[in-house]
Amino acid sequence: MTNTHNTAPTQFVKANDVKYAYRWFGTTSGTPVVFLQHFRGGLDNWDPKVTDGLAKDRPVILFNNAGVASSGGEPSNTVSGMAKHVITFVNALGLTQIDLLGFSLGGFVAQEVALQSPDLSRRIILGGTGPQGGEGMASLKPKAAEHATQETPVLENFLYLFFAPSETSQAAGRAFWDRRHGRADQDVSSSMAAMGAQADAIAGWGVVPETDRYGQLKKIKQPVLVVNGHDDIMVPSINSFILQQHIPNATLIIYPDSGHGAIFQYPDLFVSHARLFLEK
Amino acid sequence: MTNTHNTAPTQFVKANDVKYAYRWFGTTSGTPVVFLQHFRGGLDNWDPKVTDGLAKDRPVILFNNAGVASSGGEPSNTVSGMAKHVITFVNALGLTQIDLLGFSLGGFVAQEVALQSPDLSRRIILGGTGPQGGEGMASLKPKAAEHATQETPVLENFLYLFFAPSETSQAAGRAFWDRRHGRADQDVSSSMAAMGAQADAIAGWGVVPETDRYGQLKKIKQPVLVVNGHDDIMVPSINSFILQQHIPNATLIIYPDSGHGAIFQYPDLFVSHARLFLEK
Repeated sequence: MTNTHNTAPTQFVKANDVKYAYRWFGTTSGTPVVFLQHFRGGLDNWDPKVTDGLAKDRPVILFNNAGVASSGGEPSNTVSGMAKHVITFVNALGLTQIDLLGFSLGGFVAQEVALQSPDLSRRIILGGTGPQGGEGMASLKPKAAEHATQETPVLENFLYLFFAPSETSQAAGRAFWDRRHGRADQDVSSSMAAMGAQADAIAGWGVVPETDRYGQLKKIKQPVLVVNGHDDIMVPSINSFILQQHIPNATLIIYPDSGHGAIFQYPDLFVSHARLFLEK
Repeated sequence: MTNTHNTAPTQFVKANDVKYAYRWFGTTSGTPVVFLQHFRGGLDNWDPKVTDGLAKDRPVILFNNAGVASSGGEPSNTVSGMAKHVITFVNALGLTQIDLLGFSLGGFVAQEVALQSPDLSRRIILGGTGPQGGEGMASLKPKAAEHATQETPVLENFLYLFFAPSETSQAAGRAFWDRRHGRADQDVSSSMAAMGAQADAIAGWGVVPETDRYGQLKKIKQPVLVVNGHDDIMVPSINSFILQQHIPNATLIIYPDSGHGAIFQYPDLFVSHARLFLEK
């Protein structure tokens, strides 16, 4: 491996008039795992312990959807539209098979990619996420919404939204915050316009379908690993159980004393679990 | 390691007038993991892949509760009474700290051991089990009860009760059945009297408390790993989620395409997960 999370250059690929930003590092062989980011997040909202941990034995590709952070183009206001951008981007890189790691909103998008292009993804990891029209996903509670929509999100907002109130979880949150700022040339912030489009997409995804509530999940045929924290205040943890129950080949892992950002609280353990899943 | 699942002699230790049967193998150092067995099961109802897998880097102790299979004494008809026997047995061996792996009824007993003797267990693995008064635990469905109470249980009964109806799960069930019969001198069957007492204990455990339904679980302070299959027809899988949500330091893993006996369907993966949990 020549590059790492902190040294891989930000690259761009143009397709359908959109200039997509990405970083590609890790091994040269193996199925690349494409990371799909959360609400408002860019290339530097991942945990280097997770990305470098997985990059030890596979290529890792971090990706900004259209209009998000350093990517060009218009931000999509639907999960379906975001999934189309992922597929366009992967095709533009000349890849025919990938693994997906979708976190939060990125997990919604990963499910849609699996539905729109069933053979593109070999395996899928869904973190801190839920099915379309899941439990308690129609809107955030007011305090969570306030933390989630600050013009310039700070540590305090992430500690509230991504970690449990316990001392141990909050300390893990601060350690994550330090790690994720270790790279010198941080990605630019996502615009308020992108935030608005993403909020619309999340609201649309949260609507409970009138019939066959979780029926789409049966169509996701590849192995899926669902992971979350004990009490996710952004996408309630019961939705991880629901995903496991409705996706035909899904494994569930829920971590203790943690919230939405559990994979950043237990990065080493999560990487061990993810590698077992990706390699088995 | 000199002995294995198939070669470790059946030993006996007497305490409080009960002659407890057990087998002890694995490494000489490390915290021993004591295995607590399911309804009607004896020393040979475990999967050698699981026991030998864990015995690679810790001592493993298989145990028959009082009156069960080759153990002497009267079978207890309460989970609380069974837990007292476990504590008596562990003390009789001169052990001051153990790990517990409780499967199904053994998982009920493991929870009770944690409540009665909070410092005895360092870490606890709960497989295919649920909390006192959990969801759908008051009684088995008629077809499951029929399979579970045959005088001489056969492969067909275990395939129905422990594995999913899919071809893959059923094939895994047959492979488990072969492995578990690999030892020449199999433990004797548990008596019908033991079955009756255990059935009473299970029925008592299934009663929903009138107040503070899952309140006892807050008192289990050590790290716990909860594992189950996708659709457990003996102890509904939602109870594994409930255990994770109410035990303060619990991790949950649910496996796909599987049932009550998921740890015997994915023995290698389960051992990997269990080792990560026991060692972290």
